[in-house]
Amino acid sequence: ARPKVGYLYSGNNGVNIISEQIRKTRVSDIKSIPVIVDEQTSLYDGIVALFLEDVGSIYVVSKGYLTGVVSRKDFLKSIMGGMEIHKVPVGLIMTRMPNIVLTYPHETALEAAIKIIEHEVDSLPVVEKEIIGGKELFKVVGKISKTNIARLFVELGRQ
Amino acid sequence: ARPKVGYLYSGNNGVNIISEQIRKTRVSDIKSIPVIVDEQTSLYDGIVALFLEDVGSIYVVSKGYLTGVVSRKDFLKSIMGGMEIHKVPVGLIMTRMPNIVLTYPHETALEAAIKIIEHEVDSLPVVEKEIIGGKELFKVVGKISKTNIARLFVELGRQ
Repeated sequence: ARPKVGYLYSGNNGVNIISEQIRKTRVSDIKSIPVIVDEQTSLYDGIVALFLEDVGSIYVVSKGYLTGVVSRKDFLKSIMGGMEIHKVPVGLIMTRMPNIVLTYPHETALEAAIKIIEHEVDSLPVVEKEIIGGKELFKVVGKISKTNIARLFVELGRQ
Repeated sequence: ARPKVGYLYSGNNGVNIISEQIRKTRVSDIKSIPVIVDEQTSLYDGIVALFLEDVGSIYVVSKGYLTGVVSRKDFLKSIMGGMEIHKVPVGLIMTRMPNIVLTYPHETALEAAIKIIEHEVDSLPVVEKEIIGGKELFKVVGKISKTNIARLFVELGRQ
């Protein structure tokens, strides 16, 4: 066990050391199930998925590995730009790898939150890396959004 | 000064009592400047404001007082429903008072975060109440979104 330094905890009134909990909570503890579609999915079907699942962004895969992210903002921008939503595939408007900010199950919630704030993104795909034929590929195993961070904040604050 | 109970703080390595900070931080300490439009603003102009300011929702006022909230999701839904974005005003699609979840400058960040999570909204207008002719009216003085909460989480966690 790591030595506790910097404070002494009398442990008698239910106050937890939240500073430690902020640092200990892992991405795997708070991640959500992502909505995942194929690159060939039309903008229309992508938007329908967004509404049915009530999420702000969806992840795009090809052959099972992450290739892109599409957000409400991307969809809105495409429509405003006059794109034909029944014909254009999400692959055409998504933010594409390697320009996606990723997180991993073992990272801390704090590290994920820092990435969200610094890169100004709504969510991070939680991925597991695989090396196949010398190439790095990423399996999507979850999603961390500002909602997960706000929920954790509420949980810690309520203790 | 309030007595500190439940823990002893050695005070020598910069670890702050974050549990207390979570409860002490006020909405007024972390609020953002909201984007505000008039009820007559067209959906098109509302969407342009959303993109120019890069926000997820905008607030609607009439005679200086809050009447509605419109989000990216509302705009996307209206367009999908075939609305004529150059003709329809935001007043027609917005979530209208009294169905808006509000927060106040003196509320804590934790209280605001709880409202965001429990009501599943993206942001809360920060308002000041005025009673005029026996009616409650609300001046918009800020905005609290999940981004503000995530930013506070990062700030507290980094200490």
